[in-house]
Amino acid sequence: MKSIITGTGSYIPKIIKKNSDFLNREFYGEKNESLEVSNEIIIEKFKGITGIEERRYLEPELQNSDAATIASKIAIQSANIDPEEIDQIIFAHNFGDIRFNDKQSDMLPSLASRVKHLLRIKNPNCVAYDIIFGCPGWLQGIIQADNFIQAGIAKKCLVIGAETLSRVVDPHDRDSMIYSDGAGACILEKGNKTNNGVLSFASQSFTYDEANYLFFGKSNKIIPNIHTRYIKMYGRKIYEFSLNNVPNAMKTALDKSGLPIEKIKKILIHQANEKMDEAIIKRFYQLYDSKIPVNIMPMSIQKLGNSSVATVPTLLDMILKRNLADHEINDGDAVLFASVGAGMNINALVYQF
Amino acid sequence: MKSIITGTGSYIPKIIKKNSDFLNREFYGEKNESLEVSNEIIIEKFKGITGIEERRYLEPELQNSDAATIASKIAIQSANIDPEEIDQIIFAHNFGDIRFNDKQSDMLPSLASRVKHLLRIKNPNCVAYDIIFGCPGWLQGIIQADNFIQAGIAKKCLVIGAETLSRVVDPHDRDSMIYSDGAGACILEKGNKTNNGVLSFASQSFTYDEANYLFFGKSNKIIPNIHTRYIKMYGRKIYEFSLNNVPNAMKTALDKSGLPIEKIKKILIHQANEKMDEAIIKRFYQLYDSKIPVNIMPMSIQKLGNSSVATVPTLLDMILKRNLADHEINDGDAVLFASVGAGMNINALVYQF
Repeated sequence: MKSIITGTGSYIPKIIKKNSDFLNREFYGEKNESLEVSNEIIIEKFKGITGIEERRYLEPELQNSDAATIASKIAIQSANIDPEEIDQIIFAHNFGDIRFNDKQSDMLPSLASRVKHLLRIKNPNCVAYDIIFGCPGWLQGIIQADNFIQAGIAKKCLVIGAETLSRVVDPHDRDSMIYSDGAGACILEKGNKTNNGVLSFASQSFTYDEANYLFFGKSNKIIPNIHTRYIKMYGRKIYEFSLNNVPNAMKTALDKSGLPIEKIKKILIHQANEKMDEAIIKRFYQLYDSKIPVNIMPMSIQKLGNSSVATVPTLLDMILKRNLADHEINDGDAVLFASVGAGMNINALVYQF
Repeated sequence: MKSIITGTGSYIPKIIKKNSDFLNREFYGEKNESLEVSNEIIIEKFKGITGIEERRYLEPELQNSDAATIASKIAIQSANIDPEEIDQIIFAHNFGDIRFNDKQSDMLPSLASRVKHLLRIKNPNCVAYDIIFGCPGWLQGIIQADNFIQAGIAKKCLVIGAETLSRVVDPHDRDSMIYSDGAGACILEKGNKTNNGVLSFASQSFTYDEANYLFFGKSNKIIPNIHTRYIKMYGRKIYEFSLNNVPNAMKTALDKSGLPIEKIKKILIHQANEKMDEAIIKRFYQLYDSKIPVNIMPMSIQKLGNSSVATVPTLLDMILKRNLADHEINDGDAVLFASVGAGMNINALVYQF
């Protein structure tokens, strides 16, 4: 019996940060040089490539594990299960809990323990742990949960992806406009059919040359005696890397599933850059000499930015709850999930609804 | 076929910090009060309870993932495998990489990715990720690796436990004397016998009342405008909690293994406090109405302190390499591993050498 998603939840933070909110930012380049173009042009170009118009920041009084708890409650309700029946809580993140205006990551105790505490779950046999796997962490959590379910170690797992990137962005870096906050969660359970649920997956870590394409580094603005580090990336390298490797991982997962490409009704891909995702999808369909189906790739990046591990589960929750215009997933639909991010890690998974 | 440990490695940091090095420390209590007793008495009492005489701090020029890489290289050599054959790298820690004299945790990329990069492993199908599970993280990594091996997803896993607690201790807290740095690693592989290797395990997370027994909190000394947080604990509560719950988890694992208690030749338990571990072992044997065998519990805490996730794999490596006086593990010996820590998490595992 395959593992099936029986409930989803998400929390979309309340604070809307528009592109125009960055007009007065003092941006510098990677070599700490001041930029010669105006912020108007920077933002226009940024929007053209990434598709991002606005993004969400978590309310100052909340932390990552709080947002994750809200998303988890909704997922548990929508799965209609008793929280005491959950065997595993797997929380994917990359920066822990960071308080508003603070710099320290806090994972003591783990964020999964915090969520379990906040959910008031008593069962000590519900094992709670965090995984760090870059943006593909939530999908990796699903892969791990599926594995535990198939091995008979767990029957019901809560898998969370939540991040507060707004608290690790360099205000003097144009790339800061990409990042966003969010929380998504789902319940994965042992199903009762042989052909519905998680069909197949692929997972990879590229570290030989690529380990530091996303890294923790200093501000683009030189400020004496300040050593604070922020999320940083080599965008061009990531773009090329992703284009060269993500379509292959998607193909590996799809071929393992045994499904023909025509069966895939939606592709839910991690969103850091609209143009990059379009190029990935294009190359993926080229691998099968196929045309890209209309409306295959639901996008939320325009309004939600890149919330790392939260992007894909939030998108799934929005579609299943009919909160994303022009997209739906129906019983019998096969969906291909894919993600790429820090590590550099890539994964893909085929799911039959 | 069961999963077997084919190689171990550890890195014991070079800087020795003796109890006498704390004589001039300005200690304060949990309520920020200055302490009425002298440091001589504080240290004497500390040593009497914990058994700790000295501890190790990582060299300033190294970070956690560097120490982990050294331990991993030794484990790979001792397993005599080609590193390119490793399918998974699982790195258990709780604070990421922290530079000397810095406060920020860095997990971008994950520490497992860093180790894979430093080991110059090319194979992208070697999946590298971190887990956060308190001090029991390394043992939990073994449990996960065993699961992947049994499920046929992996054949060879590198499981690392490494931590630099010296970089998150509050210098004004007596408990800072407990914490230490270290790195341990092992290779877990699919074996070729049915009765040797990982026999059984138990794993639990207690979060209802216990989630914050270990937490990230402010210094015991009030310093205006400084908000840095450090590793903190409610020692008394942890002591009682551990005594009430660790022996039961050990029993669960042992009973699942089918082995009688007399078969257990060594118990390798996480070491935060010598007296506590002795009390746990005592209660464990009481559960079987048995006497505690002589020399059942190897200890390294006197010289190495509590290096969190690194304690148990370092201890195992020392014993297997005959670097711990009066203790050895031989073919055919059954060993019980156990750990307790932040979360609050507990696990135990029975292994047949």
